[in-house]
Amino acid sequence: MTDSGLTFPQGFTAAAMAAGIKPSGKTDLSCVVSDAACAWAFVGTRSSAAAACVTRNREVYGQAGPVRALVVNAGNANAATGAQGARDNADIADALGSVLNVEPDAVLTASTGIIGHLLPMDRVLSGVEHLPDELGRDAAPFAAAIMTTDTHPKTAQATLSTGARIVGTAKGSGMIHPDMATMFAFAFTDARVDQAALRAAFPAIVNRTFNAVTVDGDTSTNDMALVLANGHAGEVDLAEFLTGLEGVMHDLARQIAADGEGATKLLTVRVSGARSEAEALTAARTCCVSPLLKSAVHGNDPNWGRVIMAVGRSGAAVDVERMTVQVQGTPVFAGRPLPYDAAQVSASMQAPEVVFEVGLGVGDAVGEAWGCDLSAEYVSINADYTT
Amino acid sequence: MTDSGLTFPQGFTAAAMAAGIKPSGKTDLSCVVSDAACAWAFVGTRSSAAAACVTRNREVYGQAGPVRALVVNAGNANAATGAQGARDNADIADALGSVLNVEPDAVLTASTGIIGHLLPMDRVLSGVEHLPDELGRDAAPFAAAIMTTDTHPKTAQATLSTGARIVGTAKGSGMIHPDMATMFAFAFTDARVDQAALRAAFPAIVNRTFNAVTVDGDTSTNDMALVLANGHAGEVDLAEFLTGLEGVMHDLARQIAADGEGATKLLTVRVSGARSEAEALTAARTCCVSPLLKSAVHGNDPNWGRVIMAVGRSGAAVDVERMTVQVQGTPVFAGRPLPYDAAQVSASMQAPEVVFEVGLGVGDAVGEAWGCDLSAEYVSINADYTT
Repeated sequence: MTDSGLTFPQGFTAAAMAAGIKPSGKTDLSCVVSDAACAWAFVGTRSSAAAACVTRNREVYGQAGPVRALVVNAGNANAATGAQGARDNADIADALGSVLNVEPDAVLTASTGIIGHLLPMDRVLSGVEHLPDELGRDAAPFAAAIMTTDTHPKTAQATLSTGARIVGTAKGSGMIHPDMATMFAFAFTDARVDQAALRAAFPAIVNRTFNAVTVDGDTSTNDMALVLANGHAGEVDLAEFLTGLEGVMHDLARQIAADGEGATKLLTVRVSGARSEAEALTAARTCCVSPLLKSAVHGNDPNWGRVIMAVGRSGAAVDVERMTVQVQGTPVFAGRPLPYDAAQVSASMQAPEVVFEVGLGVGDAVGEAWGCDLSAEYVSINADYTT
Repeated sequence: MTDSGLTFPQGFTAAAMAAGIKPSGKTDLSCVVSDAACAWAFVGTRSSAAAACVTRNREVYGQAGPVRALVVNAGNANAATGAQGARDNADIADALGSVLNVEPDAVLTASTGIIGHLLPMDRVLSGVEHLPDELGRDAAPFAAAIMTTDTHPKTAQATLSTGARIVGTAKGSGMIHPDMATMFAFAFTDARVDQAALRAAFPAIVNRTFNAVTVDGDTSTNDMALVLANGHAGEVDLAEFLTGLEGVMHDLARQIAADGEGATKLLTVRVSGARSEAEALTAARTCCVSPLLKSAVHGNDPNWGRVIMAVGRSGAAVDVERMTVQVQGTPVFAGRPLPYDAAQVSASMQAPEVVFEVGLGVGDAVGEAWGCDLSAEYVSINADYTT
């Protein structure tokens, strides 16, 4: 759910500006600042061609010190830019740290946009210098400034029993010429959370939410998920906090999937009966990334053979004799093809969300993944030569 | 190259008929018969939901006995059809074996077409009974009868120094409602080849050819590659034979890629400087399956950032600082972005084949993969609800 008028949790402020990175002139440089040191957790892309921001955040993460700010630019991924790109990225963190009077390593960075172009550093550094002038509690300008080809900003929030809040923002996989290919999920909370406990729990949460989204199977050089906790609202129950955080990430993940390029509907695949959660997620993701299944969903075609195919190639253990498939709640396969009213099921697929439920018949583990349909619009968005 | 007037090697004959499996009324049931026992090698899909024909051929393969015939039906994959499907598949082999007066286990089977529907066994068995009446040397009727949504038959051949011949036929990944998702590559030779040597060499050849083709990353329940050698033309040099066989498979693989659904051009990715052949192939395949890169190729967009992205996520080791990318022969990246004439490179991509050459900078191994562009036509082929 995108909340208008959403404010950041206590102690967090943000600012956004048009620094001239995006040719469109839209806001493209933004930051979130905490007035107190934050415990934090981070998961970055597994790409071996990771961008400068991911590489640096990973290094800072290893030092395990607290952080105070995040600076984000859109319009340029600063990826495949070599040693100069790494220096530029560090210079941005240094510059914001200097203005805020905090250590450079208390500033995290994130870039999204075109791959293989150096940042226009004069404009970026001049922007960073003035960015903190406009800090405010409103989350909307930040959520808008991190977008590339997203059609709308993505935010979600949770309030815990103590009154502590978690506010999340994300940008999706809008990917457009020549290479916009980044997902970000940033969560900010005023809950007080032990950093070690947060870091221990975060990767699994990302795996079940952010990593269960697939628009086209292409993994970015810049993907990252972050959570910053400044403690202003005091101690919270860890389990309650993690449940709330996962809810926020889950909400953002579905928003990202539904706003995939050219998407007209959300594709949800729920897998049960798997040998492990990892295998359940693998099977669900493989369904969500299948161009054949995505095309069928676009055409309201209850094409369950493509689910069998995708699960079969996913590597997850399955007993086809005990396997089950439901499309929008209608059983279509249970070890063998079941009779069903194809026209009726097709009609039920003309909905904002199409759900496949798949039982693998080999265990008790479950997993869920989200994607979107594949439309001709996806091709035209990504094929047009625009320079 | 598709050769019209192509005949099978000595001792092989084939027949094809319209048995009424395809609603279109086109030929859909065919066989190839050898008048002598064949040494053979087989590679089947790794799908854990493999079709009845793959499962049975794999069992027969384990017995290592010689074979005499292959029977193929198109229009129905006989996959996800449970125990009845397995019985039907065995009955087809039994029926052809009976007509030919050979053991059932000397008959291999292959099915392609819709998943999740039982075969119309009355029509199939009646067809099989009459199929051998029409056996002839011409390869064209067989090559046509194994097609589903292929736009044309695919054949290739090689002649060895002894005069022995290798003739290959394939069908591509035409996939249409509800699920046509099969590649076949069948090679027939009159060379005399030791079965153990053939079986030892065949998987690597398939890996470099047939397994290096990707149209959409979806792996079928029915994919298989087969080679049958009846020995009529006598002994051959094994190395020369394997080179010839790989050439035939290579040619067929490229034909399959170029005829991908909605394809307007062939996409070739050559990787060098990899740590191993397996990693080179993985990197090349990941590029060929990337919807972003495929869309860029469709739009003549020299979008090398998407190559960096795809290689980065492939899992292959790469040193980005030493990585190189060329598009249609023009260097665009060498550890950092290179200046190039984008309009000129875009113009050079308006060709039947677009080649990316990628150096990973970490070793000496090479690998090549083939795919096709992603067009809006792919979506419409696979989205339309047609029942």
